[in-house]
Formats: sequence, structure tokens, C-alpha cells
Amino acid sequence: MIEDLSAIVGPRYVLTGADTDKWGRDWTGAYVAQPLAVVRPADTAEVAAVMAFAHAASLPVVPVSGNTGLNGGAHGDNAIVLSLDRLNSIETIDVAGRSATVGAGVVLTQLHDAVAAHDLIFPMTFGARGSAMVGGILSTNAGGSNVVRYGNTRDLVLGIEVVMADGRIMDLMTALHKDNSGLNLRHLMIGAEGTLGIITRAIVKLFPKPAAYATATVAVPTLTDALALLHRIQAVTGGAVEAFEYMPAAYIAGHLAVVAGAKPPFAKAHDVNLLIEVGEDADRLTTLLAEMLEADQVLDAVIAQNEAQRQDMWARREAAAEITFHRRPFVDTDVAVALPMVERFLTEARARLTELDPEADDLSVAHLGDGNIHYTAYPSRDDPALKDAIKEMVEDVVTELRGSFSAEHGVGISKLKTMARRKDPVALDTMRAIKAALDPKGILNPGKLYPPKRA
Amino acid sequence: MIEDLSAIVGPRYVLTGADTDKWGRDWTGAYVAQPLAVVRPADTAEVAAVMAFAHAASLPVVPVSGNTGLNGGAHGDNAIVLSLDRLNSIETIDVAGRSATVGAGVVLTQLHDAVAAHDLIFPMTFGARGSAMVGGILSTNAGGSNVVRYGNTRDLVLGIEVVMADGRIMDLMTALHKDNSGLNLRHLMIGAEGTLGIITRAIVKLFPKPAAYATATVAVPTLTDALALLHRIQAVTGGAVEAFEYMPAAYIAGHLAVVAGAKPPFAKAHDVNLLIEVGEDADRLTTLLAEMLEADQVLDAVIAQNEAQRQDMWARREAAAEITFHRRPFVDTDVAVALPMVERFLTEARARLTELDPEADDLSVAHLGDGNIHYTAYPSRDDPALKDAIKEMVEDVVTELRGSFSAEHGVGISKLKTMARRKDPVALDTMRAIKAALDPKGILNPGKLYPPKRA
Ligand SMILES: Cc1cc2nc3c(=O)[nH]c(=O)nc-3n(C[C@H](O)[C@H](O)[C@H](O)COP(=O)(O)OP(=O)(O)OC[C@H]3O[C@@H](n4cnc5c(N)ncnc54)[C@H](O)[C@@H]3O)c2cc1C
Ligand SMILES: Cc1cc2nc3c(=O)[nH]c(=O)nc-3n(C[C@H](O)[C@H](O)[C@H](O)COP(=O)(O)OP(=O)(O)OC[C@H]3O[C@@H](n4cnc5c(N)ncnc54)[C@H](O)[C@@H]3O)c2cc1C
Repeated sequence: MIEDLSAIVGPRYVLTGADTDKWGRDWTGAYVAQPLAVVRPADTAEVAAVMAFAHAASLPVVPVSGNTGLNGGAHGDNAIVLSLDRLNSIETIDVAGRSATVGAGVVLTQLHDAVAAHDLIFPMTFGARGSAMVGGILSTNAGGSNVVRYGNTRDLVLGIEVVMADGRIMDLMTALHKDNSGLNLRHLMIGAEGTLGIITRAIVKLFPKPAAYATATVAVPTLTDALALLHRIQAVTGGAVEAFEYMPAAYIAGHLAVVAGAKPPFAKAHDVNLLIEVGEDADRLTTLLAEMLEADQVLDAVIAQNEAQRQDMWARREAAAEITFHRRPFVDTDVAVALPMVERFLTEARARLTELDPEADDLSVAHLGDGNIHYTAYPSRDDPALKDAIKEMVEDVVTELRGSFSAEHGVGISKLKTMARRKDPVALDTMRAIKAALDPKGILNPGKLYPPKRA
Repeated sequence: MIEDLSAIVGPRYVLTGADTDKWGRDWTGAYVAQPLAVVRPADTAEVAAVMAFAHAASLPVVPVSGNTGLNGGAHGDNAIVLSLDRLNSIETIDVAGRSATVGAGVVLTQLHDAVAAHDLIFPMTFGARGSAMVGGILSTNAGGSNVVRYGNTRDLVLGIEVVMADGRIMDLMTALHKDNSGLNLRHLMIGAEGTLGIITRAIVKLFPKPAAYATATVAVPTLTDALALLHRIQAVTGGAVEAFEYMPAAYIAGHLAVVAGAKPPFAKAHDVNLLIEVGEDADRLTTLLAEMLEADQVLDAVIAQNEAQRQDMWARREAAAEITFHRRPFVDTDVAVALPMVERFLTEARARLTELDPEADDLSVAHLGDGNIHYTAYPSRDDPALKDAIKEMVEDVVTELRGSFSAEHGVGISKLKTMARRKDPVALDTMRAIKAALDPKGILNPGKLYPPKRA
């Protein structure tokens, strides 16, 4: 096997033993693996040759890009780990066409920097942007804080190139805004977590950098008022809201407790604090907030007066991981519900948490504009059975509200059981049928996304 | 068969013989069919029972909604034609959540009217809106003139319910803006032209009605300037362009010749005329156009001063079918290219058309903001071989420019040969594999979308 792979990519780019350590551990630390080998092809042709070889030999292949995924999706134990990191060229930036053609190994910040030179943006961004790569971002359909304006990753992709399980290359590299020439295979491959093919290149959409950003921290009485405020700002600005983030009182308190030098947003503590960013100057937002303060629809509001104040507001929101994981034990989740259901989700989850464990506590932070809640429970004791019960309780509430148990982070290994329990059974069967049709030998990222069928 | 179907939906709703005439002919008149029966179920459960029966009996089923499709996709010869027209209820309008839950048989204008009562819009619209229904609109992933702002149909759908080939019901009825719980089956079903399942219900996105519309007819020197203008308006308005339509000189001349009472947009004829609509008041558009007129980047511009003038501008653009099909013989197409390639497409197509037929003429009209061109050639004689050659020539140009031979209208029967000739072969095989996996008996809309494999 090592010789075969070396013949394809060159011996330098086939790693074994200790050289694979970097790929043997994921960002969460939960998944430790011993790959058969890590292979680092230089281009699409080499990826295709690796897959043709693995297919012929029926060897499992686990694709990996930046290895920052949070669900164990790139866990490559006893498999050929196929790293896309060398496909890292930004091939073209089409300024007139507002698109860029990039390799799967391009790091997100690399793309941000390259397009910034043309006053353009690729709007997808999140904490791991310095390591996450195009191939992984597409394969997990990453979200983040700007989804309310620009959509999820899938909405930002025009074309892709995919190497199939058997090594054939599927060419969907078009930069089209309308294309009804058959089934939409692009959307099938995006978010497939490496189980249907290897994404090797992509054409992504670019957008003009907004001329200005207006950023504010705002307190409103309830989450219902928050949603009404979102709609008002959207109406006034013609849909220019770039971020609409929710931080409850406990989150603000956590920030003050955990982060050195943290300052409260307001003199008085409020239940519903929002970080709002609009992609234009502050005029219309200021006028609207002043009106709503007058009418008691808004309780308090601070608009950033300069970039430093803006960065402070964002730093508070981006301290989420620090604040959330400071206390232990915890059970963290990543759920989505319809926009008007966020309040009900939080109330229900809290009530049922207290039933399960009267001394438990919880904390949430939400991409409110998308109905995406990162809800974390803190049980009073580190009891696996209790933690499982809390997980199931959150799933129950989400299911009752017709929400999703995985808003952003995908399934991978970590949510296999939840998929089995909660996903519509016909949808699950349909996914399995597609998987079997496109990867009949089951060599692409085995053991991920599709829970095994009960006997 | 008739008894079995009658037992499911009631004898009143199983039509045969002359009663099926309405479904025996399509909008273009090109496809005439004699269905085995037309069956009109009342709800999802009845659709499921019809499919379970057809599956057990291995009978072909052709779904039909408004029967306005332009590619023969609902052609139901010798098949059970399954009409969704009775699933016509608007179940809920969630004003706070900006979504509506609707049956597949809801007519587009019915949906428009229902949401208008809440000052909301469902932005998809096109000529056949008085007949086309949700099920057909989703299954063809319809486009239109507002795609530049709101996207194609698939971008406007949050959830769907699908009856599979064997009668099982797949429940994807969620109203979520983020959901990474497995493969995206929604996008697979949307645009599948009834070949993978029957869409019975949907949750669609709603948007606030813009407070105002600014509508203008503008002449610029070249298509390159037109694209630059689009980017300038998008930058100035924060992306509020609702329509950006191209009408060449020949189109304006055709309008004057064909439509009684038609008026020219400008005193002087120009090569590149644009219909531009922005979803806000006219202030920023007016300022920008004045600046650009001053700088000779815009040759002429008229901004609608009232709703009547706005309607006149739209009437010119919406006379496309009348203008295009006035002359015969013709070869019409529906292609898309990357935005900066529109000019090259038109120049190339014209040059090669002249080579094929020195006396031929052509006419185009385009959703320029999406790179979607309706290009029509007028050969000098009604010669099937020449018409085929012209079709292939257009496909050649599109393929060379990495465009799509079917931007809006899908494949159905009419573009089967083109699919076979032009679609990436690996993509085509992948589509066939998915079809075989989800509809192993091949009973769902047979003979559409997937060209038969060469022996
Ligand atoms: C600090 C931090 C913050 C984060 N914030 C967010 C957030 O706000 N929103 C959000 O959605 N996610 C977030 N994430 C998770 C996010 O999904 C991933 O970081 C990112 O999208 C994965 O990119 P990657 O290149 O690291 O992929 P990897 O981890 O390498 O791979 C992810 C998955 O995709 C597969 N894969 C990788 N490359 C390919 C390829 N070329 N073809 C096919 N399959 C492939 C892998 O097998 C694996 O299943 C965060 C992660 C971290 C560590
Ligand atoms: C005057 C006119 C103007 C048009 N303008 C445009 C335009 O600007 N942009 C554009 O994109 N299109 C346009 N179209 C075509 C457009 O695609 C269709 O009109 C519309 O989307 C189809 O809706 P329908 O309900 O009539 O579907 P039908 O014609 O009934 O069906 C269309 C296809 O979908 C399948 N189907 C129908 N219902 C279901 C269901 N419930 N589940 C699964 N499959 C189903 C059918 O089998 C068929 O293949 C125009 C058509 C006309 C006649």
C-alpha cells in the first residue's frame, strides 16, 4: 500500500508512524486515531489516482482539510487519511464576475486576504478561520454569525469539482446563478462530510465589502421583542443585517467573571442583550433605536463609535467558548428552531433540566437571526447517565418544536446515535440508499454520518 | 386499476377518456398524451396510497401541478397522471417567522395574494403565475426576474414533504435556517422534475415588501458597462437590486413593430438597454445615474415617476414571448453563463449563426443580473437539419464558456438529447445512480430528465 501511494504522490507525501501525529488527534481531543497512512496529493489528478487505488483495493479513505471539525468527522483510525492541504492555490479571482476559483486546501483567512485586495469579501467566517480549509468548510456546510445576511456555506458556492469513490472526476465547476440541467449534485456534495466524494476545487461567490458597518449592543424586554426588532431593522435597511446575536444575562455575567478586563454592556443588567451589526453607516440604525427607546420597545442601546468599540462588542460574543467551557461538567449542544420558537425552546429546556437535576444550571448564546442556539447545561454532578438524559431531553424539546439537533456542526461520529433516534426514518433510509449508490464499497469516510441500521 | 385508484381517492377523482383532455396537452402544444387515468388525491395520505398501489403494480406515475412547464416534463402518455391540484390549502402564514406552510397545489398568485395581506411577499414570480403551482414550481426550480435579489425557487424553500416512489412519506417539513443533520435531501428533490418523489407540501420563505420600488430604463455603451453599473448600484444600495434585465436594440425595435401602442424608451436608439428595479425609493439610484450620465458611463436614463410608468417599463420586458415568437421559423434557447461572459456568448453565437446561415437573424433578451439569456435564432428557412445545427451551435458556445444549456426551464423531454451530449458524464452517471437507488422500479416520471444510456 505505501509503495502504491508513494508511486502516485511521491514518497515525501506519504506519511506513516509518528509523522501522522498531527492528523491523529482532533481539535476537541475526543478522537484519537492511528491512520494507516496520511497521503498528501498535489492536485486533482493525484486525488483521483489515490481514490482509484483505494477503490480497487477496497481500502477506507478519510478526507481531511484543516482538521478543525467538531464532530469527529475526520477521524481516520485504520484508514488512509487523504489530506487536501496541498491543493492550496487560489487559481483566479474574477472581480467582474464576483467569484473566486480555489483549491480545497485553501485556508479561510488566505481566501479572505486575497479577495480583500479587490475590496471584496467572502463572507463566511468563524473562530477556526486560520486553519479551516475550503474542502472542510464545504463538506460541513459551515455556518457562523453572518448567515442571516449571506446564508450558509452552501449558499456561497457556485461550482465544485469532486473525485468520486472510484476515482472518477465529476466536473461541476461552473460559475452560474441559474442552472437547471438535472439533479443538483452540488448541494448533495456540500455538507456530505466526505462520505460521497472528495471535493478538490470550488468556485465561490464574492460580495462587495459594505461601505461601513454599524454595530450596536441593545437590550430589549423579551425575545419576542428581539425578533420584532430584527424585522424592523431589516425593513428600514432593506435587509442589511449582517449579524443578530443573542446573549442572555447569564452570558454577560459569565463574561464578566471569566474574561479579564471584561466590561458590562450597560450600567444595569438586562435579560435579553443583542449584538447587532448592519452593513451600512449608523444613520438609519441610530434613528430607529432612538425611536424605539422612546417607545420603550428598546431598554438600552450602545452604538460603537469606532472600530475599537466595535471590536470590544465582538470580543464579548466571541468569548463564547471560553465562557461556556469554563464550568464543568457540561453538556453542550448546537440546535436550531424556527425563529419564533427560540424563547419556547429555552423555557422548555430550562424547565425540564430542573426536573432532571434541580441543582443544574444552563447557559445559552444564539445566532438569533437564524434560530441557532448553542445551549449548554451544567449538571450538578459528573454522571454519564445524567448527561445522557440531558442530551436526550434537549433532543426531545427540539423534536417537539420541529427543530434540528445539528444546526451547524454536522453529524460525524458524535451525533450518530442522535441521527438514529431523531432523524425522519424515511430520510435516513434515503440517505443510506444514496450512500450505497455512490460509494458501493463503503470506502469513503466509513462510520460517519449514517448510523448503522438496527438488526 | 381504475377500481383500485377509486378506492383510494373516490370515484369522482379518477378521470379517464375525454375527462383527461385538460392533462393531455401541454402549454407549448408540443406534447400530446393519452393518460391511463388522471387521479386527483385530496391529501398526502391519498398521494401515498396512490404511490404504494402504483409501486406494487409497477405502473408509471407522472406528477402534474399547473401543467405550465415548458419542457414536456408533465407529459403523461400511458401513465397514471397524478394531479396535485386538490392539495391547494395555505395551511399557515407565520408572520413572525416569515414563512408559509402550503400544499403542492397552491397556485402562485393565490400565495402572493394571501401573504400580501400581511405586507409580505413571496418573491418568485413569472408569466405563468396564475396557473403554476407550488409543486411544479419547486420541481422545476423556477427562476424569473427577481433571482438577482432573492435567488431561485430552491433558495426560497425551507421545508418539504415528499411521497417516495414506494409510497412512504418523507418528512422534511422544518422551518430552519440552519440544519446540518445529514445529506441535504431538500435540494435534491427541488428541481428533480418529479423523478425522485412527489412533493406534497412545503414551507416557503416570505420577505417584507420593500417600502418602495425605483424602476428605470437605462442605456449604457456596452454589456461590460452594464455589469459595472450593476455592481455600482449594488454597492450604493447595499444589494437592493430586484431586477436587472437586458434588451438589445433589436428587442426594442421588435417591441415597437409587434406591440400596438408601444413607445421607444429613448429619443435615440441604443444598443444596450436595461430595465433596472431597486427595492427602495429612487433617491440613491437617481443620484448615481446622474453622476454616471455626467461621466458618460450612462448614455441615457429614464426613472419611472409613478406606478403607470413603472408598469409600462415592465410591459416592454414582459412582451418577450410576443416579440420573440412573432417571427418564424425560430430556434429558442434558455442558457446561462458567468456574468462577464454574456457579451462573448452573444458575439460568438451571432458569428457562428451567420456561418451556418448567412441570412439568419437573432434576438436576445436576458436576466442579465443572473447571466441568463433567452437567445432566439431565426433561420432563413424552415429546415429541421439547419435548426438542429443551430441548436448544437448554441450548445457548443455554451459548453466552451462553461455555461448551462438549461438555465431555468429544466430538462424534461425536450432537452434529453442535450443532456446526453453535454452534461459531464460522471455527473450524468451519478444522477442515474441516485434515480435507480430511490426509484428502483423506475415508475416516477419515466423517460424524463435522464437520457437513456447508450448501448
Ligand atoms: C474554534 C472553532 C470555531 C468554530 N466555529 C464554527 C462556527 O461558527 N460555525 C460552524 O459551522 N462551524 C464552526 N466550527 C466547525 C467547522 O465546521 C469547521 O471548523 C470547519 O468547517 C471544518 O473545516 P476543516 O477544513 O477543518 O475540515 P475538517 O475538520 O478537516 O473536516 C471536516 C469534515 O469534512 C470532511 N472533509 C474535509 N475535507 C474534505 C474534502 N476536501 N472533501 C470531502 N470531505 C472533506 C472530513 O472528512 C470531515 O468529515 C468551528 C470549529 C472550531 C475549532
Ligand atoms: C407563460 C410562461 C412563463 C414562464 N416563465 C418562466 C420563468 O420566467 N422562469 C422559469 O423558471 N420558468 C418559467 N416558466 C416555466 C415554469 O417552470 C413553469 O411554469 C412552472 O415552474 C411549473 O409549474 P407547474 O405547476 O405548471 O408545473 P407542471 O408543468 O405541472 O410540472 C412541471 C414539472 O414538475 C413535475 N411536477 C409537478 N408537480 C410536482 C410535484 N408535486 N411533485 C413532483 N414533481 C412535480 C412535473 O412532472 C413536471 O416534470 C414559464 C411558463 C409559462 C407557460
